[in-house]
Amino acid sequence: MNRVIKFKNPPTIVATGSVVGKEEGEGPLADEFDEVHEDVTFGEESWEKAESTLQKLAIEKAIEKWGRSKDEVSILFAGDLLNQCTGSTFGNRDLSIPFVGMYGACSTMALTMATASVFVASGVAKTAIAATSSHFCSSEKQFRFPLEYGGQRTPTAQRTCTAAGASVIEKSGGKVSVDSVIFGKIQDLGITDANNMGAAMAPAAADTIFNFLSDTKTSPEDYDLILTGDLGFVGSELLSELMKKDYNIDISSVHNDCGKMMFYREEQDVHAGGSGCGCAASIVNSYIYRRICEKELNKVLFVATGALLSPTSTMQGESIPGIAHGVLLKGI
Amino acid sequence: MNRVIKFKNPPTIVATGSVVGKEEGEGPLADEFDEVHEDVTFGEESWEKAESTLQKLAIEKAIEKWGRSKDEVSILFAGDLLNQCTGSTFGNRDLSIPFVGMYGACSTMALTMATASVFVASGVAKTAIAATSSHFCSSEKQFRFPLEYGGQRTPTAQRTCTAAGASVIEKSGGKVSVDSVIFGKIQDLGITDANNMGAAMAPAAADTIFNFLSDTKTSPEDYDLILTGDLGFVGSELLSELMKKDYNIDISSVHNDCGKMMFYREEQDVHAGGSGCGCAASIVNSYIYRRICEKELNKVLFVATGALLSPTSTMQGESIPGIAHGVLLKGI
Repeated sequence: MNRVIKFKNPPTIVATGSVVGKEEGEGPLADEFDEVHEDVTFGEESWEKAESTLQKLAIEKAIEKWGRSKDEVSILFAGDLLNQCTGSTFGNRDLSIPFVGMYGACSTMALTMATASVFVASGVAKTAIAATSSHFCSSEKQFRFPLEYGGQRTPTAQRTCTAAGASVIEKSGGKVSVDSVIFGKIQDLGITDANNMGAAMAPAAADTIFNFLSDTKTSPEDYDLILTGDLGFVGSELLSELMKKDYNIDISSVHNDCGKMMFYREEQDVHAGGSGCGCAASIVNSYIYRRICEKELNKVLFVATGALLSPTSTMQGESIPGIAHGVLLKGI
Repeated sequence: MNRVIKFKNPPTIVATGSVVGKEEGEGPLADEFDEVHEDVTFGEESWEKAESTLQKLAIEKAIEKWGRSKDEVSILFAGDLLNQCTGSTFGNRDLSIPFVGMYGACSTMALTMATASVFVASGVAKTAIAATSSHFCSSEKQFRFPLEYGGQRTPTAQRTCTAAGASVIEKSGGKVSVDSVIFGKIQDLGITDANNMGAAMAPAAADTIFNFLSDTKTSPEDYDLILTGDLGFVGSELLSELMKKDYNIDISSVHNDCGKMMFYREEQDVHAGGSGCGCAASIVNSYIYRRICEKELNKVLFVATGALLSPTSTMQGESIPGIAHGVLLKGI
């Protein structure tokens, strides 16, 4: 069964928003983001509320750049890592836009973009927004240790980015089209180390990339960039190995990963790189979007990966299921 | 802006699955469900794993009644109440079906049905499954108190159902069509009592029902049933009042609520009734589906409501945002 959904009339991204925190604003992509906030509380009293505000800012920025009123947005697709997705629900409760909550862990940006694109391409929605966020402090608190504990992180651990991104998608009018999308299957190869998410997610990325290439009868050379979301340095190497070993495909010449792009690895001491829904979301909705608009890139296969664990599943000795959703972005 | 999505070629529900626990199997709808399990551990070692298995059983039952192979399912939409939606991700990780994770709290059945219907109606998916689950014990543990604590519940508290439901949706072939859908807007009227979810969700139900009636230029009398999901006894009364007060619409003659239907209120001592994603999911995918197939009901507006809180948001003094998604089911 063909898994790639190719749109007859590909919808387009007409505006984007990207907002990040202090550390992300000190990385190589600092100048690309719409807003860099030194104060990662975003003026709020808790990390969860800070994340809600962060996501809201990215969506508001996208709407502002779109140049129309929020009341003209047909539907909003959003999700995040927080329990019960409160980053999204509290961030967007005042927007008064029909709201579809989604959960895909760090794959959420591709998941929301792909779903929003289906809604717009089919004519069901005129204007859809896809968004997600993550926050270093709310994630550490929820998934790992209280920040005050000052725990040492393992070399394979990634740093959750304080970042959010949003895309406004319409039938036409943008310089970047969503040519086709693919929804991932859950892959679980038995990884149980919650500090090595890259390894848990790499098989899912490999499965999605292989199926995308296979369904579309293309090879890595047909793309300017195959961009994974948040595998980081460890997971990216594993992905290249898996692609070679399991599928005899070499993606290394066109592959990059948002988790590798966000920080200066050594100077910023981020171990295996960046992660979190907001990592890929902020990069795709700034740097990547702009490079395609400016025709420096033309075909970008964006595959965001998510580790579908919870602290409870990890404590119960469960392995980490991974998933990867894909979106082919093309210049117009 | 018209919020109702009316399908030119309405997709149909071709099979359903419903699986419930012991208490639900002792209620008025006992004979309607595909499976009643006395053992609510479902043979698993934790409540979270029990819920995963419960959801999996409902999906497998739906696929079994559909009569085809799981490999022919294009896409699966599912979500649940557990942190990071692990009920769905762990339940479905072995199915090898492209997976879209969704979060809508107790509105999830309408959310997944509506989204799956858009995918099928637009031709993007040939066969889609919509599913969700909830489990009394995993919910109590996560949202309220450890079961062992034996805490007394307030009169406005609802009982989370141990239940799951799944629908197989295809372009044609079923006896029940998804005529149109509406995605809800988040409503927050400032309710902060997490033991009174019905009150938090009623405004969202009212907004969605009003907009559905208004967009389609219909009145309550045009429906055989307006079925809300999980407002329970307290929330249902509030909904009727709100509809009258805010919109001057009397729905009382055609309204019922899944939370009121699941249990014998007095004998089973369930306070304000049933709740949880699985409550509406199991009832719609058994009793309601069958009544429409058998032409006892023809037009059912199913509006599932969700309270988008988390234990953390409640502890931080936040109010409870509600949402309600709607699906118009019609006999063919």
